[in-house]
Amino acid sequence: MTRSGTVRPGGRTARVREAVREATLAELAEKGYDRMTVEGVALRAGVHKTTVYRRWGSVEGLAADALDLAVAEPWPVPDTGTIEGDLRELTRLVLDGFADPEMGPVSTAFVRASARDPVVARALRAFFAARHEQSALLVTRAVERGELPGDIDAADLIRTAVAPLYYRLFVTGEPVDEQVADRAAAAALAAARAGVFRPR
Amino acid sequence: MTRSGTVRPGGRTARVREAVREATLAELAEKGYDRMTVEGVALRAGVHKTTVYRRWGSVEGLAADALDLAVAEPWPVPDTGTIEGDLRELTRLVLDGFADPEMGPVSTAFVRASARDPVVARALRAFFAARHEQSALLVTRAVERGELPGDIDAADLIRTAVAPLYYRLFVTGEPVDEQVADRAAAAALAAARAGVFRPR
Repeated sequence: MTRSGTVRPGGRTARVREAVREATLAELAEKGYDRMTVEGVALRAGVHKTTVYRRWGSVEGLAADALDLAVAEPWPVPDTGTIEGDLRELTRLVLDGFADPEMGPVSTAFVRASARDPVVARALRAFFAARHEQSALLVTRAVERGELPGDIDAADLIRTAVAPLYYRLFVTGEPVDEQVADRAAAAALAAARAGVFRPR
Repeated sequence: MTRSGTVRPGGRTARVREAVREATLAELAEKGYDRMTVEGVALRAGVHKTTVYRRWGSVEGLAADALDLAVAEPWPVPDTGTIEGDLRELTRLVLDGFADPEMGPVSTAFVRASARDPVVARALRAFFAARHEQSALLVTRAVERGELPGDIDAADLIRTAVAPLYYRLFVTGEPVDEQVADRAAAAALAAARAGVFRPR
């Protein structure tokens, strides 16, 4: 443990932070954002609640920190060899993430919580900005392979590919399946090929 | 007033329903879904609260009925003469709706409420199904003008056109503007022209 208490990989501070994050995700999945408590997270993490209160302050702080840690995690940017395959894998990743019995409820809880807490909203926005930026790599590769024109707003292509899934999941409440995911990927690719995502 | 108490345009039952709906929307805009009450709606509508409880049951029932009435309302399906213009006008309608100081908070409140109440969720889903179906008219016109192929899933073209706006508004929290709306419309059109929305 460093004397200043800063996070160091493998250090005690990092271990506590990771334990608290795991507990936050588990409580979110089990109880939802409205019913989770700082005490519940502390108990599950095996950390004294005064420590949790001092370092995270509140449920908002716990959720925001869990999102901050998620940004830093490795994330499997699709690399199938074609932009068509990569975009399809990307939308399938979103689909599978929400269908996952553990990840799905947690992801949903984060989006719902962002509607109520500015702190969570800020963290969620940063999380998506990071995901858009990471995913832009598959666009860069496609440009290098000559599959897409070089003057392209990669983040907006990514947003367009995933948006129809989120629209159904969080707005209309319509079901999602692989056909929905594949069509969303195909629509974004057609738009990219037509030059819709040229930077403005 | 009909003896059975069924809704009849211009009848007392219809007037009460309309007054209660107006009050529901005003309370939603002013207080949000979490803080609105049956009593508050009754007071604002000038209707006895026992009447509201008997007919609508709860805040969920009030919100769901307001959505049901919204489905039946005339809605300005764009008719600019080209599919390009119509889709752009459609995404601008969504943009302007959420930017409107009265309609915006109400629309947002409905989407947020659907996350918590199955009754509202069902009504919201029916509302969007109706909007998708109404908007399909602009696709039908484009097919008749020979602008788009006839074998097309119109509702999915509409969903794809509006989804990027909703993704920013309700998921990532990113700002929306006319450029975002126009690009979303252009992306959906490019996908339609490429045959992505052929029915499966």
